[in-house]
Amino acid sequence: MGIVVAVRVLGIHSSPRKYGNSFKMLWVALRAAQRAGAETEYINLYDLSIGPCLACYSDHFLNCRYPKEAGECPLRGRDDYSLVAEKLLSSDAVIFSTPVYWFMVSGVLKNLFDRMTSLENMVYHVGRSLLDGKVAGVLAAGEEAGAATALSWAVFTLVNMGFHVPAWGTAYYHGRGDVLDDKQAVSDAYNVGVNVVRLVKLLRGGEEANKPWYRFLSDDEYRSLVEEARKVATEMENRQRRERPWLR
Amino acid sequence: MGIVVAVRVLGIHSSPRKYGNSFKMLWVALRAAQRAGAETEYINLYDLSIGPCLACYSDHFLNCRYPKEAGECPLRGRDDYSLVAEKLLSSDAVIFSTPVYWFMVSGVLKNLFDRMTSLENMVYHVGRSLLDGKVAGVLAAGEEAGAATALSWAVFTLVNMGFHVPAWGTAYYHGRGDVLDDKQAVSDAYNVGVNVVRLVKLLRGGEEANKPWYRFLSDDEYRSLVEEARKVATEMENRQRRERPWLR
Amino acid sequence: MGIVVAVRVLGIHSSPRKYGNSFKMLWVALRAAQRAGAETEYINLYDLSIGPCLACYSDHFLNCRYPKEAGECPLRGRDDYSLVAEKLLSSDAVIFSTPVYWFMVSGVLKNLFDRMTSLENMVYHVGRSLLDGKVAGVLAAGEEAGAATALSWAVFTLVNMGFHVPAWGTAYYHGRGDVLDDKQAVSDAYNVGVNVVRLVKLLRGGEEANKPWYRFLSDDEYRSLVEEARKVATEMENRQRRERPWLR
Amino acid sequence: MGIVVAVRVLGIHSSPRKYGNSFKMLWVALRAAQRAGAETEYINLYDLSIGPCLACYSDHFLNCRYPKEAGECPLRGRDDYSLVAEKLLSSDAVIFSTPVYWFMVSGVLKNLFDRMTSLENMVYHVGRSLLDGKVAGVLAAGEEAGAATALSWAVFTLVNMGFHVPAWGTAYYHGRGDVLDDKQAVSDAYNVGVNVVRLVKLLRGGEEANKPWYRFLSDDEYRSLVEEARKVATEMENRQRRERPWLR
Repeated sequence: MGIVVAVRVLGIHSSPRKYGNSFKMLWVALRAAQRAGAETEYINLYDLSIGPCLACYSDHFLNCRYPKEAGECPLRGRDDYSLVAEKLLSSDAVIFSTPVYWFMVSGVLKNLFDRMTSLENMVYHVGRSLLDGKVAGVLAAGEEAGAATALSWAVFTLVNMGFHVPAWGTAYYHGRGDVLDDKQAVSDAYNVGVNVVRLVKLLRGGEEANKPWYRFLSDDEYRSLVEEARKVATEMENRQRRERPWLR
Repeated sequence: MGIVVAVRVLGIHSSPRKYGNSFKMLWVALRAAQRAGAETEYINLYDLSIGPCLACYSDHFLNCRYPKEAGECPLRGRDDYSLVAEKLLSSDAVIFSTPVYWFMVSGVLKNLFDRMTSLENMVYHVGRSLLDGKVAGVLAAGEEAGAATALSWAVFTLVNMGFHVPAWGTAYYHGRGDVLDDKQAVSDAYNVGVNVVRLVKLLRGGEEANKPWYRFLSDDEYRSLVEEARKVATEMENRQRRERPWLR
Repeated sequence: MGIVVAVRVLGIHSSPRKYGNSFKMLWVALRAAQRAGAETEYINLYDLSIGPCLACYSDHFLNCRYPKEAGECPLRGRDDYSLVAEKLLSSDAVIFSTPVYWFMVSGVLKNLFDRMTSLENMVYHVGRSLLDGKVAGVLAAGEEAGAATALSWAVFTLVNMGFHVPAWGTAYYHGRGDVLDDKQAVSDAYNVGVNVVRLVKLLRGGEEANKPWYRFLSDDEYRSLVEEARKVATEMENRQRRERPWLR
Repeated sequence: MGIVVAVRVLGIHSSPRKYGNSFKMLWVALRAAQRAGAETEYINLYDLSIGPCLACYSDHFLNCRYPKEAGECPLRGRDDYSLVAEKLLSSDAVIFSTPVYWFMVSGVLKNLFDRMTSLENMVYHVGRSLLDGKVAGVLAAGEEAGAATALSWAVFTLVNMGFHVPAWGTAYYHGRGDVLDDKQAVSDAYNVGVNVVRLVKLLRGGEEANKPWYRFLSDDEYRSLVEEARKVATEMENRQRRERPWLR
């Protein structure tokens, strides 16, 4: 008889106002996650100090790694990043919630994402992003425009770190009122919480899900694939070029 | 003994150049999907005529629906949209591939997305987006910048139509060369193809996956949820306000 | 005694609903432009047929040019693009107004921008974008999020075609109501209209303004510039590398 | 005889690598600005400590102001923001240069923009953004995609703070090489430097330019404008509704 391990959902809040609309949305999403069976945890980035990334990666892509061993990252031990990183690593799903400042996520959340490179970049050291296969949701609240810009950027970035994003995995509120008065926005946030948990559970259902979600092609695979692709594309080009005689 | 139904992956290409980099990436992704066990289909939007959305929705949100019955959409039968819509409906996963024109998807793909509102908007008519629970991947190729802008927008939009986006579910190439010479980009496109199929299979593994991925809260649920959220937020505010005495 | 030529402002509307919020905002901006002394013209892209770009440019960058002479663009004479292009060419400023569909400009506006490549690309044929030095403003209205995404994309693209964008040169409305009830949004649209005219007038004030706003560097200029830049950067690197001993 | 005041251009670099591609682009742009007659200054945000915005504005829009007098901003004197703000205020043009981290500007630049709210928000205190009428250019360099996303966001935000953005006022480089080997990118950065200076000079040419670029409408102006707009829109709607009989 297997032991059922609860789904762990981490809520990361990135507003200095711990009572505002982005907080309320995160609260709703975490409550929904609990009802869907998850254990949840809340942290607020303004309670921590996370310095800006030093971009060692840009000097050499192997410079950057998550500091399991002392000395790997020059910032290791100099701020609270490791604390957040450990929480990310032990979570199945993460729900980020941000206020919208100038049409984008808050500066502290941008700094965190920049630093999370050290987790993603492990794909070059150990063959797998340390975030690979986790599930993410994102929430944004702002008085003015920009929620979509912030959410688009966040979702795309998370997918590029190795997170899955479930259907309806984002929610936003824009307006000067209280998000809790907006049933649509509350429903949306609720669905984010439910859906990250549902997706984690489904991913657990198959052995397949435990394999890395990114695999580098071998040189042989690459070569044979490309050879075939070239042939097809050339055929397509030859055929279509005849219909486009004006081209150089 | 159950019948195994193959995963169906639809590749939608939106470039007039049927032999260019966005084609090659889509070919690689579809080949990968085939190897992962899927049946694939390729269509090119430049072979079809899809007119711009008339935005009936903006006059009343119930105006817009997918034309199961004659007369619902004023454009029904006047262009090729229904053809694409039917293919979308019968697919488990969709891989969109676009050239990057002015830092964004091509105009024909934007037009298709605008029209897909009729599928998503069925959530208001039948309680479920007709795209709910499907899986999407997106590919982009361009000589200059803009792939990330295009992909961010596309991924966020698809999640808001009800698609899941798997880890590493996007890939891009930027440069003036041949994408097939870029092993990273080919690997990335390959993983998009594999991952949409893997996610479809995992989603099939559970009964849970067959339920809609969006559920409107009942009024009672909404009320009790909001009541609790308000209490928590007020407490948070009272506590934090004391630390921010400079605020009005 | 010089002849004062009126500032000509073209308003391009890209909504099928010629009475909606994006229309109202454009009307306000054009009225403001008139009050600032401009002659204005309004066109709606839904009254025209503008086909998608064929991307001949991607086969060779000299393929694409604005069809002064027959035969240059394979679409010449096959749709209404030339009509819009001529209006763009004879305007000093252009104000684009778009509804927000899926967090972005409407498909018809994206198609127009794609086609405007033929005007911009003349920089390679005659040394100057045919849009170089004109002034642009952009308006967006939508029920849900996405105005900022649409406007960011549009403004950045226009700057890359050769348009100046004045301070406060964009305005948006998001909400389900009537933009005319929102004084902030009306003020914003009004300022867009005034500011494009003000900037045109100031640009006319100097001879300098008539010179192209993009100039390719000569090979000599490029070489000497780069030589010096390299020296400075190498010095910077040598100095800073000593402070980052952990780097490879 | 008037005294000619030199155009002052501030270059703000936001990379920890003071010798990388974003540095080189900024150097080229500043050299171009010097050749166009400007005095230039370079600062690097990694040499300063600028904490995240506390979003007092969101509690009440009058909470946020630039700290001319002690006590206005709770962060006043606690970090180096005032130093940058003073440099911004005494500049005619600002060129921002950023590395691309996760398809967006670096975290330190996002933090600076968030804090610049205090300058822009003075529009509510003194009727004019303290950045109103200045000129901005933006540069971005990254190995992978995202330059366009970063630049779009930055340009749109700057226009919304009151900056003018000149034609070709942005430049980017993407690739793993040295930007100085890319003549197009060097030319682009050069033009950014020249164009911000040219625009400042033209703006100085007219008295008109010295007036604020944003003006709130009076209630009377608003009312009469809206009345007329409503009439026109209603007419348009009545006319067009007849052509769209399928609408509710």
